[in-house]
Amino acid sequence: MRISQLSAASGVPIPTIKYYLREGLLPSGEQTSATRAEYGEAHVRRLRLIRALLEVGRLPIASIRKVLAAVDDEDLSMHHVLGTAHYAIAPEVAPHPDDEDWRRARAEADRLISELGWRIEPWAPTRDELAQAVQTLDRLGMPATGEALRPYARAAASLVEQEMGTIPMDGPRETAVEALVIGTVVHGRVLDVLRRLAHESASARIFEARQAGKDCQAEKDRPTP
Amino acid sequence: MRISQLSAASGVPIPTIKYYLREGLLPSGEQTSATRAEYGEAHVRRLRLIRALLEVGRLPIASIRKVLAAVDDEDLSMHHVLGTAHYAIAPEVAPHPDDEDWRRARAEADRLISELGWRIEPWAPTRDELAQAVQTLDRLGMPATGEALRPYARAAASLVEQEMGTIPMDGPRETAVEALVIGTVVHGRVLDVLRRLAHESASARIFEARQAGKDCQAEKDRPTP
Repeated sequence: MRISQLSAASGVPIPTIKYYLREGLLPSGEQTSATRAEYGEAHVRRLRLIRALLEVGRLPIASIRKVLAAVDDEDLSMHHVLGTAHYAIAPEVAPHPDDEDWRRARAEADRLISELGWRIEPWAPTRDELAQAVQTLDRLGMPATGEALRPYARAAASLVEQEMGTIPMDGPRETAVEALVIGTVVHGRVLDVLRRLAHESASARIFEARQAGKDCQAEKDRPTP
Repeated sequence: MRISQLSAASGVPIPTIKYYLREGLLPSGEQTSATRAEYGEAHVRRLRLIRALLEVGRLPIASIRKVLAAVDDEDLSMHHVLGTAHYAIAPEVAPHPDDEDWRRARAEADRLISELGWRIEPWAPTRDELAQAVQTLDRLGMPATGEALRPYARAAASLVEQEMGTIPMDGPRETAVEALVIGTVVHGRVLDVLRRLAHESASARIFEARQAGKDCQAEKDRPTP
């Protein structure tokens, strides 16, 4: 197909496609004449992935480049490619190995992961991200031990089994990475808003029960005629 | 205490305290002379809450003002005050009542909330936020029905019961709102990183099992000597 058809098939405007070509995010089409190139289904898939990384994952171009390089590197296993995407969508966390509090938080994070029996690379940046969350809880005086976090880990694990099942592992790598990024980000948002809704509902119940308790007490305290 | 002591007790620098006083976020101290004012524990609590809303909730000053107005309005129930904080930390979502897709997504969100038996105000902006998530899933061709979202709702509800238990309901309102905001935001981050860790672990298991399957098949396919 020609660039105009690629634009129609992907929904990406031609100037944007040209920008991706210049940036090397999208491989060139097959040159059929001095002014014409032919594009295929692989280009449509690649454009879909770039849009997902950009609009859903909100990744900067440099991170998108890294993910695409992993997709293109045939020496990397699919697990490694998905891992690259995971690490790219994680917020950046600077570890503080010289800080005593940080080392304690990181040790707590590592202990939790190991107790759960989870298979996480030792260099995964997500370990530092978990350490940072542990440190924040700790600083705010909230329970930050593995025991306090375990219910969250259990909830996460139960949801993820199902999510992994929706990722098409046997098709083109682009499609799997796209499904992983979209699934992770959008389901994260779903879970976040449902948590806040559940909070509101729990608060409504708690305060209604307390009010009912007060009304009942007032009834009891009323002098009998 | 004097402003310097208030600064020491709260960890907030004096110029910042003066800024909050000018903005009306922090009530004035008791004027003891032309150049001196006396502050109390209520000021320390209020400063802690402002910091939590600003640094953990990442709220703009205008939203902080709204939350503090609710805290100060004695006519509002505690449930209403917590609700104001909840709605303030929710991302802003513009509803599109004229759009057919939007109305469908919003109806799906309302149906899910009602089927769960959750007690959510009809005007809660979180309903629109859930509708937006439903619409995003739908556009991306992912399951977006109440049935698909129910596991997320269950996970959210199970965690929230425990979180609500940690909010001190009988002390000053500032303390409860602070605990709610911090708990919601920080536990949201905890859950998010644990989900991505669980994803990595699930991916490691899946690809190891697939590799083992392939090795086994290769073994079987080897011609017997």
